[in-house]
Amino acid sequence: MSQRVKIRQILLNSSTNYDVTVKGWVRTFRNNQFIALNDGSTNNNLQVVVNEAEIDPALFKRITRGAAIAVTGQIIPSLGKGQRIELKAAQLEILGDCDAEAYPIQPQKQSLEFLREIAHLRFRTNTFGAVFRLRHALAFAVHRFFNEKGFVYLHTPIITASDAEGAGEMFRVTTLDLKNPPRTENGEIDYKEDFFGRTTNLTVSGQLEGELGAMAFGDIYTFGPTFRAENSNTARHLAEFWMIEPEMAFYDLKDNMDLAEEFIKYVIRYALDNNREDLEFLAQRLADEEKGKPQVERSEMGLIEKLEFVLNNEFMRITYTEAIDILKNSKPNKNKKFQYPVEEWGTDLQSEHERYLVEKHFKKPVILTDYPAAIKSFYMKQNEDGKTVRAMDILFPGIGEIVGGSQREENYDKLVRRMNELNIPVEELYWYLDTRRFGTAPHAGFGLGFERLVLFVSGMSNIRDVIPFPRTPKNAEF
Amino acid sequence: MSQRVKIRQILLNSSTNYDVTVKGWVRTFRNNQFIALNDGSTNNNLQVVVNEAEIDPALFKRITRGAAIAVTGQIIPSLGKGQRIELKAAQLEILGDCDAEAYPIQPQKQSLEFLREIAHLRFRTNTFGAVFRLRHALAFAVHRFFNEKGFVYLHTPIITASDAEGAGEMFRVTTLDLKNPPRTENGEIDYKEDFFGRTTNLTVSGQLEGELGAMAFGDIYTFGPTFRAENSNTARHLAEFWMIEPEMAFYDLKDNMDLAEEFIKYVIRYALDNNREDLEFLAQRLADEEKGKPQVERSEMGLIEKLEFVLNNEFMRITYTEAIDILKNSKPNKNKKFQYPVEEWGTDLQSEHERYLVEKHFKKPVILTDYPAAIKSFYMKQNEDGKTVRAMDILFPGIGEIVGGSQREENYDKLVRRMNELNIPVEELYWYLDTRRFGTAPHAGFGLGFERLVLFVSGMSNIRDVIPFPRTPKNAEF
Repeated sequence: MSQRVKIRQILLNSSTNYDVTVKGWVRTFRNNQFIALNDGSTNNNLQVVVNEAEIDPALFKRITRGAAIAVTGQIIPSLGKGQRIELKAAQLEILGDCDAEAYPIQPQKQSLEFLREIAHLRFRTNTFGAVFRLRHALAFAVHRFFNEKGFVYLHTPIITASDAEGAGEMFRVTTLDLKNPPRTENGEIDYKEDFFGRTTNLTVSGQLEGELGAMAFGDIYTFGPTFRAENSNTARHLAEFWMIEPEMAFYDLKDNMDLAEEFIKYVIRYALDNNREDLEFLAQRLADEEKGKPQVERSEMGLIEKLEFVLNNEFMRITYTEAIDILKNSKPNKNKKFQYPVEEWGTDLQSEHERYLVEKHFKKPVILTDYPAAIKSFYMKQNEDGKTVRAMDILFPGIGEIVGGSQREENYDKLVRRMNELNIPVEELYWYLDTRRFGTAPHAGFGLGFERLVLFVSGMSNIRDVIPFPRTPKNAEF
Repeated sequence: MSQRVKIRQILLNSSTNYDVTVKGWVRTFRNNQFIALNDGSTNNNLQVVVNEAEIDPALFKRITRGAAIAVTGQIIPSLGKGQRIELKAAQLEILGDCDAEAYPIQPQKQSLEFLREIAHLRFRTNTFGAVFRLRHALAFAVHRFFNEKGFVYLHTPIITASDAEGAGEMFRVTTLDLKNPPRTENGEIDYKEDFFGRTTNLTVSGQLEGELGAMAFGDIYTFGPTFRAENSNTARHLAEFWMIEPEMAFYDLKDNMDLAEEFIKYVIRYALDNNREDLEFLAQRLADEEKGKPQVERSEMGLIEKLEFVLNNEFMRITYTEAIDILKNSKPNKNKKFQYPVEEWGTDLQSEHERYLVEKHFKKPVILTDYPAAIKSFYMKQNEDGKTVRAMDILFPGIGEIVGGSQREENYDKLVRRMNELNIPVEELYWYLDTRRFGTAPHAGFGLGFERLVLFVSGMSNIRDVIPFPRTPKNAEF
């Protein structure tokens, strides 16, 4: 096919009076003369000017909203307002018709909830065009950041026999006939007959395998899908989501925090530098959405301001113990406005507490460290106080926890002791423990939920709107 | 922790007489004086020179193969042969001991089969260090290639309710209690009670969802895990593997071939430019391995020669029909050397036929196009001859099929007719068909099995050696 030129490239090109072929979809067709053409390379449309007198009437009728067309003509300075240039059509071809009446994407405003039901078509709207180009840019920035730093991208397994981390409910993976599964003599399901000869699940985290890589390559990261079979029907939870998990040998907790902060700022800056138009569109969308809300619920900052604020300010770093003190003495706690009053050291923080710290008290991202061991995972490095571990959670305004990480316990004896306390099967995780037996070293890592990052940067409010095809309880459409 | 410098950086730095701290693992300790230190950033070790007289004997004893150590000292020109520089240790710290006797990684040559059983430690060998740094480089090159071309990286779903493609046996994903699953009144498993309210499987391909993205963004690609529950215990099959699937609107079959060829050459060139040391190591490994083989089984070219040959030659493009003619008239066919004699048009090609075309007849990569419709998938564009489709397979020496793709059937009526012929449920795939109802356009795409690419570029011979933790029948270790 003759090479088309993408609309983004044409709009970026400052010259005029040259010939091009463009291909895309009709967004609107105004006054029987002006086609707003979109090809997905940008939200900005190219104005195509057609002369009805020059076009076969049968073909002309087929220029409808949603139709795919190819146009060849000249790029000229626009005579009208609202655009610098336009394409004067010399040749126009209909590639695919679209019955504008039947087309589920309609010109009037359609709710995000409705568009979620037609997720196969919602990419064609300005909002989702911007969201998913932004998602792409953030994903690319993730790879570029780690590649520049010499990290090795490690594909940790998706199907796993290990359910040792206890990070949440898991999906079973099987090829057994559920209706009539093989059974052992005593009536149990005979998993020896299953595909892998044992029970297997979908991974909840690549961390443990990631650590194996870190103890050889020094620095590794994962970026892959992870799963939780939790029955949480909220705007912040998905059953299938993408996670980024770097693991670094020779890192302590401070190195870990430094890396996480640098990483988040890098990818946000990349989006601001490379996807400005999409972000400006999403900022306007958010501003419009907030107009419908009462004053107190509106953001103090616009989307782009908020992103720049994150770039220009150091994340606040405090310990869990300091956070508890702040919360105990906070107004909402004293006035009994928290649903869960903060009384004693040791309890887990609720979303309302995290939001208070981030949005009211510090008014910026906060890294909370050194949590009580009892509320954190077995593999976190034990502090000398005997009661806290070198954990770190990064809390973001409007999002809550965006990163969870820790320095890992590199001491074999301490790790085994802790596993035994928590009844974690030591034999099953022999491979994990081997890294502590043979050339162990201080190391650390963290996990960042990719959709939460996209949620923050895009200003969208429901996590189902930042992944192409969300998987949630009772929903696996498309 | 005080910042360490990575060994790769030190070896690339041409200056000397400066102080550094390095951290890594002892590969060998020679003459009580020379430590070969490796930190995973490169296969090349840094020679660390220690003076036994200056070190506490208790600490000195702990400098063993596999131990993790930190060394601070001065980089000086090396007095010995074999290295340009060395690190004169001023301070040495043991971070983690290693009992060299018990350590599963031993200095004598260990078989790839044995190392596969200790996949959690094999990253620490030169071979797997090189393979997985190469895998990283290829993955990064994939993202860079598509990003530069303005493709959107689309995360298509891993858990899917659609099994329409028929690409192979699938893994069931469920949260039902297998021992005692809920049943409907007539005794069937009641999948309404399952997590997603229906039967769900692990994806075999993101193509169908990818097409949805292409019809909005123009160009998209996926890069994610895919699954086949096939009981194939071969050196070329995995139950879990990573696939790259670009889909492009306004592409015909030729555009598709051009892109695929450009793509493969780009990522190979990237590896040659960025991972030369690893490739040279792997080339030597392959040459050593081949020394043990009879002359006829050895490759005509070394690994790097072979990669450069691919870069410097156009892939041969022929139709299936032409290939059948060549095969029919080939010596092995006439001499009845093929296990499956080539007799009539319409039969699928076997691995032996593909190898003959690529390795004997053309001696370069071959793109086979326009296969009989009967042996290809329902979504491929039907040619006007009524019997072939616009498919393309790219065949590589030693690998076989590395890419499978096609122009897609964009005509709604033709597509539905074909689906009906093959008993593919039209209602279930309404979302796929909608792209043909609303603004359809010519489009094309392909899938590249990432491990097959890594296999080709690394010169390894078993696919289990190019993915960190292979999943195969009866094996889901780690």
